[in-house]
Amino acid sequence: MEKWLVGVDLGGTTIKIAFVTLDGHIVEKWEIPTNINEDGKHIVTDITESIHTKLNDLSEPKEKLEAIGMGAPGFIDMKTGFIYHAVNIGWRDYPLKEELEKATGLSVIVDNDANIAAIGEMWRGAGDGEGNLLMVTLGTGVGGGIIVNGHIMHGTNGMAGEIGHITAIPDGGAACNCGRTGCIETIASATGISRISKEKALKDSSSSLYSLLQENGEIKAKDVVAAAEKGDKVAIDTLDEVTFHLGLVIANLANSINPGKIVIGGGVSKAGHTLMERLEQKFKHFALPRVAEGAEMKVATLGNDAGVIGGAWLAKHNR
Amino acid sequence: MEKWLVGVDLGGTTIKIAFVTLDGHIVEKWEIPTNINEDGKHIVTDITESIHTKLNDLSEPKEKLEAIGMGAPGFIDMKTGFIYHAVNIGWRDYPLKEELEKATGLSVIVDNDANIAAIGEMWRGAGDGEGNLLMVTLGTGVGGGIIVNGHIMHGTNGMAGEIGHITAIPDGGAACNCGRTGCIETIASATGISRISKEKALKDSSSSLYSLLQENGEIKAKDVVAAAEKGDKVAIDTLDEVTFHLGLVIANLANSINPGKIVIGGGVSKAGHTLMERLEQKFKHFALPRVAEGAEMKVATLGNDAGVIGGAWLAKHNR
Repeated sequence: MEKWLVGVDLGGTTIKIAFVTLDGHIVEKWEIPTNINEDGKHIVTDITESIHTKLNDLSEPKEKLEAIGMGAPGFIDMKTGFIYHAVNIGWRDYPLKEELEKATGLSVIVDNDANIAAIGEMWRGAGDGEGNLLMVTLGTGVGGGIIVNGHIMHGTNGMAGEIGHITAIPDGGAACNCGRTGCIETIASATGISRISKEKALKDSSSSLYSLLQENGEIKAKDVVAAAEKGDKVAIDTLDEVTFHLGLVIANLANSINPGKIVIGGGVSKAGHTLMERLEQKFKHFALPRVAEGAEMKVATLGNDAGVIGGAWLAKHNR
Repeated sequence: MEKWLVGVDLGGTTIKIAFVTLDGHIVEKWEIPTNINEDGKHIVTDITESIHTKLNDLSEPKEKLEAIGMGAPGFIDMKTGFIYHAVNIGWRDYPLKEELEKATGLSVIVDNDANIAAIGEMWRGAGDGEGNLLMVTLGTGVGGGIIVNGHIMHGTNGMAGEIGHITAIPDGGAACNCGRTGCIETIASATGISRISKEKALKDSSSSLYSLLQENGEIKAKDVVAAAEKGDKVAIDTLDEVTFHLGLVIANLANSINPGKIVIGGGVSKAGHTLMERLEQKFKHFALPRVAEGAEMKVATLGNDAGVIGGAWLAKHNR
């Protein structure tokens, strides 16, 4: 019997689950809501029951499943699968690996959600099997994952890959959720792009973004991209500023870790070439020539599936 | 018979060689001049003969030696020990590993000189066995090595750890040897400190460094440190500026790779607490709290022995 791996990607609102073949193809994927009541105590039971129900639907025995690989937000001890603190979920000092193993009878491996997305892209996505990969996720925040020689880089206390809190503006930058100022997250996230475009639009009433701001009271990152494609100066200036800082941050990191692929994911990456051409140009300006040569920059291809596929990779490689 | 490892550290003017025990203690160390005549073709023979002579002196048989680990400057293919280009040595497309193995009859492993210093400090120096370590060498230039899970990080084409060419000043920085501008090497190297102090001293004739500049035509990095210790404002401003940029670069890198130790080596690190206190303060300002907590910053302890000890480590772990 060919076994399946189980990938689980835990988010603040939904839990994504998939059965994945040993070579990384999704057989079945689905979502359940994240029940954060009572400090997240129902989550493990919900996942377990959902997996069993799905097996029944597919008329497969429990033995079909090999192992579970799971991504979770927050501070995690990857070795023990212990969650120190996951703000959005309500877990504090929660032995996730132990609980999920007890409930499912399967071996479980847990890692950070940004890290499993990176390893998913390495395995089956834009990373194309490249073992030295930097993934940068541009969403509401800026996240990241670093793969070294085919393994997730964790660092000394699990903080490796926290790219969003690299300081891009040392003095006078915008306030960041982390309590500091000037982090790249305040610039290159959807929120950051929105903020910067708003500041610029308010100074230029000829911009289409100025009118949009008057109408809607806000400018979204995707509005900026759309306006830039139509040649709006404020939108273009915004993207130039954003990619200047992001390109510099990525180049500086690449000069140190020398990745073979740089994968840009998250909602903002859907901007496609309007963003990527600028970003690549800035990156090449600030990277050492040999580093730039070695690094192919690509948009992530797995979208929301990156996490469950990365989870499956973990399950496979830690059997 | 307890075997010895051979560590070799090739520099532009001298070759450092040592016999090292399996647990990393130097039994015997010596230097020979680097003969760069005829594109470095005599170097392998010189090393081989020097090792044999030393064995004879110590009345030890050739069988006493286990393997050779060697650090070399330039672009190296670490897997094959092939040197693409070592400017100071004269080698171009030189099969170092193959040649040295043929000459000595021992197995040879080759790595970048900055990397073997980092692994040496990890093994027997300030790194204290910490498997996630960042080494920053402040000398004529700024070099670096990154250790991840006890292994040297090489990256996709051997450029990992090229910390000196992280851009600290994106616009209007000083010219760097790499052809770009504003690299941290232009600021935090001995040369950089010298340059910055000179610029500042010329604007302040009350500074002791101004007088020194008039007398000697130059200010050395160690003069800046000495003057700062005596409270000279120009010297203090210089070190504040240097450590601001270096602290930011190291913090940004640490936010991504999350090292357990940060080891500062090279001639400039001899400035000791005058430099280190400032650097640590800036580092902590820009690092995420949990990253700063996890990272102990220390001055390198092995000095010129780091390379041969790191070479021995390589020889041991690649038998």
